[in-house]
Amino acid sequence: MSKKTTIYDIAKALDITAATVSRALNNNPKISDTTRELVLQKAAEMNYEQNKLAQALKSGKSYNVGVIVPRVDSNFFGSVIRGIEEELNPQGYHVIICQSYEDPKTEGKKIDTLLNAQVDGVLVSTTSNSKKEPLKRILAKNIPLIFFDRRKDMQGVSSVVINDFEGAYKATKHLIDEGCTKIAHLSGNFSLEIFRERFSGYKQAIIDAGLPFNEDWVIKTKSNRTDGIEATKTLLQLNPRPDAIFSASDFAALGAIQEIRAQKLNIPQDISVVGFSNEPFTKFMELPISTIDQSPFEMGKMAAKVFLEQSNNESHVKMEKKVVLDPQLIIRNSSLKTQVLTP
Amino acid sequence: MSKKTTIYDIAKALDITAATVSRALNNNPKISDTTRELVLQKAAEMNYEQNKLAQALKSGKSYNVGVIVPRVDSNFFGSVIRGIEEELNPQGYHVIICQSYEDPKTEGKKIDTLLNAQVDGVLVSTTSNSKKEPLKRILAKNIPLIFFDRRKDMQGVSSVVINDFEGAYKATKHLIDEGCTKIAHLSGNFSLEIFRERFSGYKQAIIDAGLPFNEDWVIKTKSNRTDGIEATKTLLQLNPRPDAIFSASDFAALGAIQEIRAQKLNIPQDISVVGFSNEPFTKFMELPISTIDQSPFEMGKMAAKVFLEQSNNESHVKMEKKVVLDPQLIIRNSSLKTQVLTP
Repeated sequence: MSKKTTIYDIAKALDITAATVSRALNNNPKISDTTRELVLQKAAEMNYEQNKLAQALKSGKSYNVGVIVPRVDSNFFGSVIRGIEEELNPQGYHVIICQSYEDPKTEGKKIDTLLNAQVDGVLVSTTSNSKKEPLKRILAKNIPLIFFDRRKDMQGVSSVVINDFEGAYKATKHLIDEGCTKIAHLSGNFSLEIFRERFSGYKQAIIDAGLPFNEDWVIKTKSNRTDGIEATKTLLQLNPRPDAIFSASDFAALGAIQEIRAQKLNIPQDISVVGFSNEPFTKFMELPISTIDQSPFEMGKMAAKVFLEQSNNESHVKMEKKVVLDPQLIIRNSSLKTQVLTP
Repeated sequence: MSKKTTIYDIAKALDITAATVSRALNNNPKISDTTRELVLQKAAEMNYEQNKLAQALKSGKSYNVGVIVPRVDSNFFGSVIRGIEEELNPQGYHVIICQSYEDPKTEGKKIDTLLNAQVDGVLVSTTSNSKKEPLKRILAKNIPLIFFDRRKDMQGVSSVVINDFEGAYKATKHLIDEGCTKIAHLSGNFSLEIFRERFSGYKQAIIDAGLPFNEDWVIKTKSNRTDGIEATKTLLQLNPRPDAIFSASDFAALGAIQEIRAQKLNIPQDISVVGFSNEPFTKFMELPISTIDQSPFEMGKMAAKVFLEQSNNESHVKMEKKVVLDPQLIIRNSSLKTQVLTP
């Protein structure tokens, strides 16, 4: 009874090779799910104690990959994570997710949590105020670090982002093409590159069209509905009143629409609205909201691919890659004056 | 140069005790964030290599807790996870999240991923078809397993759920009180207890009111908008046509509302609609949707508390706890015929 079960015992009981047992226990992707489940069941029955940790210490590979996002309960980050998993799961990797709640301290702690869990890589969408020190602890361990959507300027770190300037430029130009001349902007936190870029794209489109740029029409807003409502209250009191709002976030755009309606103004006739992110609700509202699609699923797949490249890179030459995805303008009724679409 | 840095070297450099350095490196919650950050920085500077894994092997505690949910990008699961983190973070625990994507095989793999990451506990909301075998692997390691919202009947496993029967009963009774007599039900997958309970609550309310129960008015629907649309198409063709729909999911309720409107019927005058979950969109729609609130944040906090109790339970007496939270009916314009609320 005191004799410890080995992989050879399991192999004998199942009439398969010890190598197959070992591969099954180590999540080798070449082993079918059925075989793996069978081995795990038999191993549990026979009280086999695999010292995974000791193994990880030896092989240095856990096949776990960590993902840190500000929050998981938005469609955008949910879709990015799905893209990451769809790319990594077939390679035998497992994704574990942590939330930073937009707090740099929490982000630092989650980095340590993932490092303690012996992850083989960390994919991060940073907070608006991330510190480099904790991120450097990942690099210090020679573990690939990849940024997606929100990045920090750090040497040797690859990233996958969308062209936020281009997205904002397209959205603003569309409003101008629809005849709007007084376009306000609900911007985000400028310590994040994505919001600086969206602001720049907005401003450039206005200048390129020969329209005057008005600082009063730019309001810093958090990406939520209530802040969108507050900012719009301010905008609607201005004289002259803006005839369009380009919001750097769909959630703030939703607040804008609610406030505009509460004040009995018509959308898009009096004021047009365009958001950013293509959150699902923008499509299913009674008044569908124009927005910018960021291809989050493809972003996740791409970030995972960059991780795999780096992870399998056996040369000593480090690489740094910046992948920039092209955003897409989706025109819906909240901004289409010239011809109203059927929902 | 070849001498390895010890915690005594770090203590000396910072002029603090070695015990403090050790506590800071081990995430002891008694150490302030500032001190901890300082120690980690100095440790990195001095190339201190803490063998976390070897330590975890010795102490048997990683202070990581795993959470598995079908998907993260819903407000419900997002809020539960926030509740879990708010309860566990102050105790020095870190939460790592995995998604099962409603697939029992994936769930099994994620369990192993978390076990390999040496978690101190696993909190699971099961898939509609979860297998007990992988869940038993958690218990076999003497690690607390807690179910929340969706559970399996397993001896010795505690759970935190809401009273789904009661929630469905309240929703249906409300529709009856508003004068509806032909109430249809968009139900979920009956292999999940929550959907069986919601169906039972719906049926009991109808029987208690002396109304006839009609099987044709119960349609199995996935929790998404498109399936809600399809099911409602079927319902609207029936003769007599239902005058109310109680949906076991907010997402299907949204589809129902879209289809009812597409067929130029009025809500709630022709057909009333009540959903389930209190997803944020139900509140901010132009026509706000009545629904059942499940207190997800409190559910998460409670699940975390049950984990802490079990984790700190030093007696050999195992306990099994079932916490049942009371759901709340939220009445909005989609079902209020007798008196229309202002939004």
